[in-house]
Amino acid sequence: MDDQTAVLTANQAFYDAFGHRDLAAMEALWAREHPVACIHPGWPALFDRDAVMQSWRRILGSSGSPAIRCAHARAFVLGEVAFVVCYELLADARLVATNIFAREGSAWLLVQHQAGPTAALAQREEAPSTQDPSRRLH
Amino acid sequence: MDDQTAVLTANQAFYDAFGHRDLAAMEALWAREHPVACIHPGWPALFDRDAVMQSWRRILGSSGSPAIRCAHARAFVLGEVAFVVCYELLADARLVATNIFAREGSAWLLVQHQAGPTAALAQREEAPSTQDPSRRLH
Repeated sequence: MDDQTAVLTANQAFYDAFGHRDLAAMEALWAREHPVACIHPGWPALFDRDAVMQSWRRILGSSGSPAIRCAHARAFVLGEVAFVVCYELLADARLVATNIFAREGSAWLLVQHQAGPTAALAQREEAPSTQDPSRRLH
Repeated sequence: MDDQTAVLTANQAFYDAFGHRDLAAMEALWAREHPVACIHPGWPALFDRDAVMQSWRRILGSSGSPAIRCAHARAFVLGEVAFVVCYELLADARLVATNIFAREGSAWLLVQHQAGPTAALAQREEAPSTQDPSRRLH
């Protein structure tokens, strides 16, 4: 599996863990050797693994935890670090996210997640897809 | 200058260019060898340098371009890539941002910027400062 595919797979695993409220999977997806940070929509920035994991325990343990689906993910691999830009589709909201990954051993693990509201998802016929990351929103 | 200081300096230069509506400085701050992306608040994600620079021409050329100040920047250096988490203080809004930098030659250049609204800035006495990046929000 090439790095770009591996990063997109790690990114999808993040949204699978989120959608399934799988805290153990979520914890396994975040870096242990690198420092981490996380910006949930509307929250202040969280720093350090304990604070980030505590936030996921709250979110995934809540009955109000949203169903979420990732769309139009694009990965940018920069050596040992990569970032993904993607949309997060919820029942009543549409967010856009940046997820940063760092390589630890053979795994790509999250070091930063920021999601925030977006007014528009590009029309499907103009939007890039996971299958065709070379296509452009603009 | 160590890498963390250099990255924070590049981050501040980005906000200086933004605040001064200095398009030439802004263009010089974005990567040329690496692909770039940008998520302005509420906008769809922009990909490729031309689209990102066009967005800055629109924003910096507008009479409504906001006064902006960066606060509580923290840099995370991961080899040849780094990211900064910081707050953006505007007259009537408070945003939180992730700025990703990659090294090109001796410079740290932007490859991704995402800013979005945040409900809260940590109280000043609890918040990290640029001068003391080891302090934590939590």
